Amino acid sequence: MSQQSTFAEIADALKNHQSFLMLSHVRPDGDAIGSELAMGGVLEEMGKTVYYVNEDGLPTNLEFLAGSEKIQLPPAEPLDIEVVVALDCATKPRLGEKSLAAAAKAKLWINIDHHISNPAYGDLNLIDATSPATGQILYNLIKDQDLPLPAVTRDNIYVAVSTDTGSFQYGSTTAATYRMAADMVDQGLKVGEINALTYDNHPYRRVELLRSLLNTLELCAQNKVAHWELTREVKEQLELLPEDSEGLIDMIRAIQGVEVAIFFEELMDGQIRVSMRSKNKNIDVCQVAQQFGGGGHKMAAGIRMPGPMSDAKPQVLAAIEAKV
Amino acid sequence: MSQQSTFAEIADALKNHQSFLMLSHVRPDGDAIGSELAMGGVLEEMGKTVYYVNEDGLPTNLEFLAGSEKIQLPPAEPLDIEVVVALDCATKPRLGEKSLAAAAKAKLWINIDHHISNPAYGDLNLIDATSPATGQILYNLIKDQDLPLPAVTRDNIYVAVSTDTGSFQYGSTTAATYRMAADMVDQGLKVGEINALTYDNHPYRRVELLRSLLNTLELCAQNKVAHWELTREVKEQLELLPEDSEGLIDMIRAIQGVEVAIFFEELMDGQIRVSMRSKNKNIDVCQVAQQFGGGGHKMAAGIRMPGPMSDAKPQVLAAIEAKV
Repeated sequence: MSQQSTFAEIADALKNHQSFLMLSHVRPDGDAIGSELAMGGVLEEMGKTVYYVNEDGLPTNLEFLAGSEKIQLPPAEPLDIEVVVALDCATKPRLGEKSLAAAAKAKLWINIDHHISNPAYGDLNLIDATSPATGQILYNLIKDQDLPLPAVTRDNIYVAVSTDTGSFQYGSTTAATYRMAADMVDQGLKVGEINALTYDNHPYRRVELLRSLLNTLELCAQNKVAHWELTREVKEQLELLPEDSEGLIDMIRAIQGVEVAIFFEELMDGQIRVSMRSKNKNIDVCQVAQQFGGGGHKMAAGIRMPGPMSDAKPQVLAAIEAKV
Repeated sequence: MSQQSTFAEIADALKNHQSFLMLSHVRPDGDAIGSELAMGGVLEEMGKTVYYVNEDGLPTNLEFLAGSEKIQLPPAEPLDIEVVVALDCATKPRLGEKSLAAAAKAKLWINIDHHISNPAYGDLNLIDATSPATGQILYNLIKDQDLPLPAVTRDNIYVAVSTDTGSFQYGSTTAATYRMAADMVDQGLKVGEINALTYDNHPYRRVELLRSLLNTLELCAQNKVAHWELTREVKEQLELLPEDSEGLIDMIRAIQGVEVAIFFEELMDGQIRVSMRSKNKNIDVCQVAQQFGGGGHKMAAGIRMPGPMSDAKPQVLAAIEAKV
């Protein structure tokens, strides 16, 4: 079976097996790790054996999540499990090679995701692109099938959805999203505490990074393009982790009149990673990315290209300027 | 009558009069202006004549609010109105002298607020300190009394509540807050659009201000205190408006390990305004403020003291360091 499954079919598969492996995508975010911990929390409450693996382990900015100490790097040997639940992962390879090897003994794959591009790679598939986060699909499954909702699942679903909706701000947020949050509060969620941990708890080096980025900020193309850069030297000096820069580009995307925001990052191998965000539906940054072998979506695209920065930057800016 | 009124008493007063003046506090925020526009929208839908006044007029960062063009500075002569509705304003003097003069002909005062310290200065009072925003009290009044909820009221209530809860993050956010947001979406609120206007639409000078502040950022007291400063020179150079710095202190308050964040601002008259935020219930910044003639709450307090910065700053930092 590779078509969409019903909530009942998923629930039956959960009930009828004993050992499970939770997986999510590489470079995991709040919805990835939150969904692993939320789903695993349901299964543990049902008395199951649950492993939690992520190809890249647990990012430091998600260490506050309840149960996050259970997230491990892929073990060298395949785990002794019957069922894999792949969460928030649009394609199987994005789970990571080592994670796939760890899952080799699974006889059943369950694929739960909200990415419209997901090809339904599971034996059972629950894909809902109208949901702003995988966490919200889990909530719908739990409610529909009357599965347990322990505190660990409640809190992790909330963070999964909150982080994937920019704190209930994005257009993907639905009335059901807010009603879910209300239900979580009724069930004991501590709104102030969990949001302080999610949003008001960043390492000092993230602020130092922001300062460094702002000191390189430039506007061009009649102030319609804002761009900043991060060099290897600054990365080493501040001892940055990959998650430290997450979301910072939103600050320049939000400038009045700016239509495209660009983040130039020098990778440790000397290549340049370019992240582009468009605010204007008529400026397709994916087309620009494709000129340099990159890809993505109309409003958010990326490139990995040869350095040095002084060569890469003017090329990309010229291509963008031709579009705005 | 100076006690708490019922929803029905408030609704009757709205129905039984024809001309109204909406007021809110000086240095207005999203809940102040949003509540004025939301309440006025209800009354206009009921066929009433409505004036919207704020002592300081409309801040630029709230110009996106539906109906905000109706907000005016206090006129020189008292307005010809029967009823004042004071919104989100804890004390009558905080409405501003000119606004009070403009309201001189009113024969009935309605006071709707969520500040616990509000002394019920209206003839009718609707004070609910369990509500995270005055906007949410308006919503409860509308629903309870089946008053009209036009789009302008829907959108302004949403922004009022969103801005006063840090986008549904603060501990003041209740299940009812999320259910209200769900109802707004059901009634046509465009979540993505309104939040983009509220949060992703700041002037370039705000980013320049943030850069300038970050370049003065220092940690002290074993990294438990973070502080930054804004000089007159930078204010003039960036042509800053008072609203440009709103909320920026949250960025340093959010640093891991920081327990007190302090913003030193040189005013145009040379005095120093000090804003302090504590993250630790045991560090009472109001006590420190009082040592310098300031005041506030345990977790958020302020001082206005003589300059220059080079005198004021070490005094306040020494007083804080004695507490942490």
